[in-house]
Amino acid sequence: MAKTLRVGIAQINTTVGDLEGNVREALEYVERARELGVDIVSFPELTVTGYPPEDLLLRAAFVKDNVEALESMVERCRGITAVVGFADLVGSAVFNAAAVIHDGRLAHVYHKERLPNYGVFDEVRYFQEGAELPVYTIAGVEVGVNICEDIWYPGDPTETQAKAGARVIVNINGSPYHAGKRRFREEMLAERARAYDVYVCYTNQVGGQDELVFDGGSMVLAPSGELMARAAMFEEELLVCDLELEQGTRNREQRKGVQHFVLGDAPFSANKLAVPTRIAPEPEGEAEVYGALVLGTRDYLHKTGFEKALIALSGGIDSSLVAAIAVDAIGAENVHGVSMPSRYSSEGSIKDAKELAENLGIEFRIIPIEPAHEAFEEMLTPAFEGTEPGVAEENLQSRIRANVILALSNKFGWIVLTTGNKSELATGYATLAGDMVGGFAVIKDVPKTLVYRLARWRNAHGGRPVIPEVVLSKPPSAELRPGQLDQDSLPPYEVLDPILEQYVEHDRSVQEIVGMGYDYGTVARVALMVDRNEYKRRQAPPGVKITPKAFGRDRRLPMASRYRAW
Amino acid sequence: MAKTLRVGIAQINTTVGDLEGNVREALEYVERARELGVDIVSFPELTVTGYPPEDLLLRAAFVKDNVEALESMVERCRGITAVVGFADLVGSAVFNAAAVIHDGRLAHVYHKERLPNYGVFDEVRYFQEGAELPVYTIAGVEVGVNICEDIWYPGDPTETQAKAGARVIVNINGSPYHAGKRRFREEMLAERARAYDVYVCYTNQVGGQDELVFDGGSMVLAPSGELMARAAMFEEELLVCDLELEQGTRNREQRKGVQHFVLGDAPFSANKLAVPTRIAPEPEGEAEVYGALVLGTRDYLHKTGFEKALIALSGGIDSSLVAAIAVDAIGAENVHGVSMPSRYSSEGSIKDAKELAENLGIEFRIIPIEPAHEAFEEMLTPAFEGTEPGVAEENLQSRIRANVILALSNKFGWIVLTTGNKSELATGYATLAGDMVGGFAVIKDVPKTLVYRLARWRNAHGGRPVIPEVVLSKPPSAELRPGQLDQDSLPPYEVLDPILEQYVEHDRSVQEIVGMGYDYGTVARVALMVDRNEYKRRQAPPGVKITPKAFGRDRRLPMASRYRAW
Repeated sequence: MAKTLRVGIAQINTTVGDLEGNVREALEYVERARELGVDIVSFPELTVTGYPPEDLLLRAAFVKDNVEALESMVERCRGITAVVGFADLVGSAVFNAAAVIHDGRLAHVYHKERLPNYGVFDEVRYFQEGAELPVYTIAGVEVGVNICEDIWYPGDPTETQAKAGARVIVNINGSPYHAGKRRFREEMLAERARAYDVYVCYTNQVGGQDELVFDGGSMVLAPSGELMARAAMFEEELLVCDLELEQGTRNREQRKGVQHFVLGDAPFSANKLAVPTRIAPEPEGEAEVYGALVLGTRDYLHKTGFEKALIALSGGIDSSLVAAIAVDAIGAENVHGVSMPSRYSSEGSIKDAKELAENLGIEFRIIPIEPAHEAFEEMLTPAFEGTEPGVAEENLQSRIRANVILALSNKFGWIVLTTGNKSELATGYATLAGDMVGGFAVIKDVPKTLVYRLARWRNAHGGRPVIPEVVLSKPPSAELRPGQLDQDSLPPYEVLDPILEQYVEHDRSVQEIVGMGYDYGTVARVALMVDRNEYKRRQAPPGVKITPKAFGRDRRLPMASRYRAW
Repeated sequence: MAKTLRVGIAQINTTVGDLEGNVREALEYVERARELGVDIVSFPELTVTGYPPEDLLLRAAFVKDNVEALESMVERCRGITAVVGFADLVGSAVFNAAAVIHDGRLAHVYHKERLPNYGVFDEVRYFQEGAELPVYTIAGVEVGVNICEDIWYPGDPTETQAKAGARVIVNINGSPYHAGKRRFREEMLAERARAYDVYVCYTNQVGGQDELVFDGGSMVLAPSGELMARAAMFEEELLVCDLELEQGTRNREQRKGVQHFVLGDAPFSANKLAVPTRIAPEPEGEAEVYGALVLGTRDYLHKTGFEKALIALSGGIDSSLVAAIAVDAIGAENVHGVSMPSRYSSEGSIKDAKELAENLGIEFRIIPIEPAHEAFEEMLTPAFEGTEPGVAEENLQSRIRANVILALSNKFGWIVLTTGNKSELATGYATLAGDMVGGFAVIKDVPKTLVYRLARWRNAHGGRPVIPEVVLSKPPSAELRPGQLDQDSLPPYEVLDPILEQYVEHDRSVQEIVGMGYDYGTVARVALMVDRNEYKRRQAPPGVKITPKAFGRDRRLPMASRYRAW
């Protein structure tokens, strides 16, 4: 005869440092789960602190406050088992922990064993490794709890927990997004489920935190590896799923370090009403990336206290895409566009910007920069006497625009969204204190060729096209001198982007990239541009990570380096 | 009867990524050491790659190139033993390693055991932990080699190496500077020497790398803990010292994991000419910090390829100090000053800036910003209609200056040195894309009260005062509106700086700081200012770390955080 374990996965959007708010939200989901007859409800990694709290964890008061916040929710979790992430303090050691709260008491605390310390992760900086491998009997079913990285590799703790009798693994996560990662995740989890003959309840957080987006997509997998339930990406959700298990306990191997805790031999409520479970459809390709950009932008703005945003609209593809994302993130009524034409701006650019703003329904104004441009030229005449016009003169315009847009930002409290893409930031084709300046760099991790694809996708999926067709077809130009085109300074983006992907994201050498069929001179030139512009990127605002390796925490290169990759 | 081991400590200034250059320099010191009859010459941690190479270590080609560079120097180290830091590659594992090169062959490689992963260090990101504890017989003496962090804590590897017979520990380092650290270092090393009854040869690197300064101060300590020799701070040096040891080997405990390697039973040259050793005097207080700022600035500029620098001289104390440091770092002929007065600048400020420039002997020009100021006001009139003048209007001036100074930078290839101090950066009393913009932020880690002390010290020690006395005595002002003073927006610096030290450097809570006798309202206000301005600091240029916790790699806080410390 079979018995049923009803699991609930609370895919919530926490905020780093908002201890009270996070606990409040978790308790709402506990209440909802209890009403649905859920036996075990699980929350994301470090639910209480938000993830990742970074160096807040080095403040003793913060860790203490987080423990108190966790304790404050324990007795309100009656009639259910809740698995809640927090930072546990044992003596002076801090652990990345999962509280197992059962029927209003703190039954046990699991400590994460595997601490990721690569990519964007610095967990060895903060946490001690856990050493215990507990298995809990909950509602008559043996369950192992572990945390994120713990399940990413074959072996312990999952293996030992399973061999010691666990039939269900509740794994709680703060797993950041990059394009395509979800498929890899699902395959990895199916492999674990099959290898250890367990149900896997994968609980991910959802929401943006600084440069990271947590994409949700929580799921339940059967011991066969089959996907039983999946939550949406980029949205909060309580995913409920019934697991059918045979009666009795499984043969247990005696395993060193394993402790068994019997929390409950039977479900709190024996008769469960049927609840719908579901496998949420997944956005594909551009839709997925676009969703991540919208969520990352919305959460950065709202979590840092901004309601309204300001964008310099050049009439080009980058600023057009950023404006569309901003509108989808915070609403057209909260987005302001400004065109700041110079003497070199084409009529078409102003017209295209205006048409975009009309299509999006955002406020739009035009502030020509000629008066300031003239003033600077006059002021600099003595110093520049006898020199040829060049980058110094071109950049004046970009920096005048920065001054105008930051003045509007300071005056009205609107955050400036910058519009540079990853191809530009990689090669340094961007002006420090000019177009680089602002509060959030929405598409800083989006290569230019993907900018085009996203713009086309948005035009095809928003009901009607918003980005004027001509913006998609005209050759890219910074318009800082007459007739200037990006392609005067950079290889064509179709060539540049794949080289950048290999060099930046995959750390391949110039030789290796040439071996893939690219021209040596081009690859060497691109590598040099990337290396030389590390200092610029360090001064860029944060933006949404969507690739496996974004500029930022992910990629920590010296500015003063003489290494040349060719 | 006694025997003598002559050790040489090559305190060199490597450059990250300059594999060939680093090896070339190391070989020059090998040559010099050999001429002096040195038995063992030691080099800093990761000599070959420079320290810290950061994510260059994630590039397979870089690690391979570094191994080849190490190999290229082996056979040129004849007639001597050299301990050289490099990144060792074993299979796919990378180790922070010390090559023990003996008489032209690679005798052994030691792998660092303890990997620091706190503060500015991320070594778990790159390296595997070493597991072997070798002891070498070199010139008839048993020697243990280990690396930096390995000796910072009691216990292994030093303890086991000593108990297994080592009488000398050669410890190679990349130990970054902060004020006062050297004393702590010396006491720690003396404790190790006494505890394990060994000579300690502490080899540090010297030089600036991005935000870090490696201060040198290499030393030799006797088993009694007595300091026998010490190299200068902030300069390259070959420090030579003779260690007197009794004949024969010490009783060895059998220790697990220890391997013995006999490299040489006798010195290469039996008759050694006397060489001078020395205990270099150490700079105290302000002199030490000033030395670090000069070295950090010089090396950042030279290692990133700049010869000349440009500074906006406001007539205030910050820019005056930065100009003095710049002159001491790269020479007066390479420093350019520019005064950019606005309508609110006092006559005194321009005069003070000019006098400073004359005292320092640097080029000086005046570019009034009124034409651009007027132009922006005109351009913004429609948008600002009906609003009260405030920060938006004030910041215009700071950003106009940024545009002027960056135009000069772009035109002439001079790096812009920014002049903001740590008190301003901590509280956000600085303008994004304004005074914050530049290539290197010389005093970003120097609190304002220390800025004053350093300025006074410089005036007292450069032969004659260079900073006009009035600059030291007038109340600080940004001069962005008539009669403005820093103290209108900030607590007095004598109150602010100690609060910042506790909150930023020691991670103390508001309650704890109030408990030290500070006013609650003031502390809470300061903490709020610090927390709210994380986003600004992320966009600041690099600058020299001189405190235990600088803004940068040292302090990784979320920008979107709702944690409030009160």
